[in-house]
Amino acid sequence: MNLSQNFNPLPTALDVEAAARRIADRAVETPLLEWPALNEWVGGRVLVKPELLQRTGSFKFRGAYNKIKHLTEDGGGKGGVVAYSSGNHAQGVAAAAQLLGLPAVIVMPADAPTIKLANTKGYGAEIVLYDRLKENREAMAEEIARQRKAAIVPPFDDPDIIAGQGTAGLEMARQAKARGIDLDAALLPCGGGGLISGSTLALRAAWPELSVYACEPATFDDTRRSLLAHSRLAVEPGAKSICDGLLSPMPGQLTFALNERLLAGGIAVSDGAVRAAMAFAFRVMKLVVEPSGAVALAALLSGQFDARGRSVGLVCSGGNVDPELFARCLEQAGEISPAK
Amino acid sequence: MNLSQNFNPLPTALDVEAAARRIADRAVETPLLEWPALNEWVGGRVLVKPELLQRTGSFKFRGAYNKIKHLTEDGGGKGGVVAYSSGNHAQGVAAAAQLLGLPAVIVMPADAPTIKLANTKGYGAEIVLYDRLKENREAMAEEIARQRKAAIVPPFDDPDIIAGQGTAGLEMARQAKARGIDLDAALLPCGGGGLISGSTLALRAAWPELSVYACEPATFDDTRRSLLAHSRLAVEPGAKSICDGLLSPMPGQLTFALNERLLAGGIAVSDGAVRAAMAFAFRVMKLVVEPSGAVALAALLSGQFDARGRSVGLVCSGGNVDPELFARCLEQAGEISPAK
Repeated sequence: MNLSQNFNPLPTALDVEAAARRIADRAVETPLLEWPALNEWVGGRVLVKPELLQRTGSFKFRGAYNKIKHLTEDGGGKGGVVAYSSGNHAQGVAAAAQLLGLPAVIVMPADAPTIKLANTKGYGAEIVLYDRLKENREAMAEEIARQRKAAIVPPFDDPDIIAGQGTAGLEMARQAKARGIDLDAALLPCGGGGLISGSTLALRAAWPELSVYACEPATFDDTRRSLLAHSRLAVEPGAKSICDGLLSPMPGQLTFALNERLLAGGIAVSDGAVRAAMAFAFRVMKLVVEPSGAVALAALLSGQFDARGRSVGLVCSGGNVDPELFARCLEQAGEISPAK
Repeated sequence: MNLSQNFNPLPTALDVEAAARRIADRAVETPLLEWPALNEWVGGRVLVKPELLQRTGSFKFRGAYNKIKHLTEDGGGKGGVVAYSSGNHAQGVAAAAQLLGLPAVIVMPADAPTIKLANTKGYGAEIVLYDRLKENREAMAEEIARQRKAAIVPPFDDPDIIAGQGTAGLEMARQAKARGIDLDAALLPCGGGGLISGSTLALRAAWPELSVYACEPATFDDTRRSLLAHSRLAVEPGAKSICDGLLSPMPGQLTFALNERLLAGGIAVSDGAVRAAMAFAFRVMKLVVEPSGAVALAALLSGQFDARGRSVGLVCSGGNVDPELFARCLEQAGEISPAK
């Protein structure tokens, strides 16, 4: 029994490096991309990590595989795994469990995007639907885990998940350094805060002065407000956003402890700015970015982050979006003009 | 005066390497991507060169920049450049001319996709529209070139264009080798044949036994039929296809001379297979691929090319598609099942 795990100590940059070794044979090393048109648009240098190219279409596979692989290395996971997720973590856990030969049960909202439900089923997981407004998904997952003697794979507030998700930032740092580029700042999507806290551990190990900003939907800017208040605050009850992957109501305990220490601040973006960013990604970058995956790009393109003369790392975190919603977002997106 | 240029000798793999050096400071080195889901789907290893990530959203920039840069190195181009194109070559020439400080006039069909017209204008080119069914675009371009003492930048049948477009294949070979992968075969889109002839020069210099297949719309399979007939054949008059970038009526003289010597054959794909490939790229690969850019992927996914147990290079050549057409293609695409 690993005592330190029970205390859930905060992961470090070394844990992110260990995670990178653990997932190397299964995760995709996504490229670090650059577009002359985007650089001209913002007057700086933007290096994009397109995690939509990751296995399962989002960064979530990194954390899920790291967690479940670690579990099996320690002799656990024999009863399978259970997770609750709006969709991308669901796919990450289902795919990771399948690769490791474990059964998986995923508790998903009944209104999750069709593509996320279908893919999760496609990776062989059993799906249990819940009503987002009436039922407590965590309690449901815990009950299932108890019955099956299965292990819970939390979406973000867990050292192995944070370290695994942080490998996106570690790769970004290594890829930029390999090209002789030093980053001044980074913009990352933030829901529960796993991706950004883990990535920032690695990014600030590479560049101690780097400023990292949490990008969130305006109605779910709990991390931005919590950073200002130095205390975890929840979102308004009943808040809505098209960013179906960023609807967590409050920063995680571990993720916020890290983020409070590491982040420079938060940027809140409107659903309109998200649609405009998705349309820009379609038109200029030729990438399919889901709403939640586009918040950092939205922060940049809406002019809320000034990239002039700077080298900025940016994560587009996922691309699992139904074609109907995608088409509607492009249709409704207004024209963007370069922020001057 | 360079005599050898007037005889238009066939370019060699060395010319492709020279082109790669000439365009290195301006072209994007697009990554070589792999998807576990695609590999599983076809039972082989597929390495995709996404030229939609190239400057201007297609491989055409490579040829245009190589040609115009070479022209200026030889003291030419003072009167600017003129090109005729359905859209991607137009953007490539306009962007290359802009970077090199030359005026550009592009003769474009009045029914070209809006995104291609808008982008070409955006790169500072003057656009002259023509009626695809009634007017001769080559004669129009020659008249403009004569009046302005400008140089024509042909879309494919030119040694510098072939060598420049072939840098996509050269990069593919270098990137695969750097990862210790030997390719058995390659699938590339083929319109006039510049991309595939130039790329195959480089690919077969790397792997002399490699089999390369020209992928074409079924209604524009002039290269496939010409290869079988050992003679350049034209398409049926009035032929139509959603692949607006692959509507050239006959193989080029230079490109066919190379392709006849270098290619293993041709594969013709239906518009339906193209839509299904675009939908697969959206759903699994998260890439925006235009119809013409998806023909090689369509050849693979439709089961017309058997990738089982092989390592296959594949080019997705462009991503300039209007959102309305893109949405319609996804909507009309049938479900694909893995070809077994």
